[in-house]
Amino acid sequence: MIENPLGIRPGEVAVALPQTFDAGLYFIGRIRTPWKTPDECPKNARESDAVCTIEVDARWTLALTEVETCTHLLVLYWMDRARRDLVLQAPRHYGQPRGTFALRSPVRPNPIAASVAQLVKIDGTTLSVVGLDCLDATPLLDLKPYFASTDAVPDATVGWHAERKR
Amino acid sequence: MIENPLGIRPGEVAVALPQTFDAGLYFIGRIRTPWKTPDECPKNARESDAVCTIEVDARWTLALTEVETCTHLLVLYWMDRARRDLVLQAPRHYGQPRGTFALRSPVRPNPIAASVAQLVKIDGTTLSVVGLDCLDATPLLDLKPYFASTDAVPDATVGWHAERKR
Repeated sequence: MIENPLGIRPGEVAVALPQTFDAGLYFIGRIRTPWKTPDECPKNARESDAVCTIEVDARWTLALTEVETCTHLLVLYWMDRARRDLVLQAPRHYGQPRGTFALRSPVRPNPIAASVAQLVKIDGTTLSVVGLDCLDATPLLDLKPYFASTDAVPDATVGWHAERKR
Repeated sequence: MIENPLGIRPGEVAVALPQTFDAGLYFIGRIRTPWKTPDECPKNARESDAVCTIEVDARWTLALTEVETCTHLLVLYWMDRARRDLVLQAPRHYGQPRGTFALRSPVRPNPIAASVAQLVKIDGTTLSVVGLDCLDATPLLDLKPYFASTDAVPDATVGWHAERKR
């Protein structure tokens, strides 16, 4: 365990990462957004109604068959500029350090984001969506149909976050 | 494009995969479930109220700080026994081939599953949860707090699936 090496904030803790990877990912497209730096990104996906564009690589064209029947998609993407070694972290807008798995920060052992996006339009391999908050040119990992029956839990709560708002 | 090579069903289509990976994943733990074969797994995560166990590797212990305040977690895991090259596929219980990105099948270019699980208990690095449907010993990739404000869309629909039930 490394406490307070260069580049981390007070209270943050980094660990040594494993020496080898266990599996490999293919980037299957790119996400185009209006945001070029982390500071410009919305704090969460509901803070902006900007239409973003998902460009799927031609190899996967047939995999989009019937995606147009979905109102919402679960979009998985790779936050390729995030460090992966913090276990306690203090995001700028929160302050107090918390566990990585209690946060939606990009910084995590596997920086895979999962965002629910509303599907506006599909034109060939280009999807127009609302509800993403990532940097422009972020690599795409997966698209899934969003099923309210299994994916929507409207009464779920995050205790530390609710406390904070009081 | 390879139509109907050995091992795929009528109407399914496979593509050649890219020759190299673009990023690497760490397995950060294992999921213990009652299901040892694909046939035993529930068809979706709401079909079973079995308590499953998530064993997080000791390296990530501190990353669980404050996770106990969450009622629900978004669990990302790696479906390591799934092929990755099908773009049109006909899952056993559906029949008609559909695009991979219109399905929640494990078979996809990056076989990352995203499931919402209810958190029952945390004991050290062992989490007891309800709402998973994966094979026993499935590798864990990430745990995230489930925020109803951004993750729950109760009125989302999947057109092809709704049609099917009529």
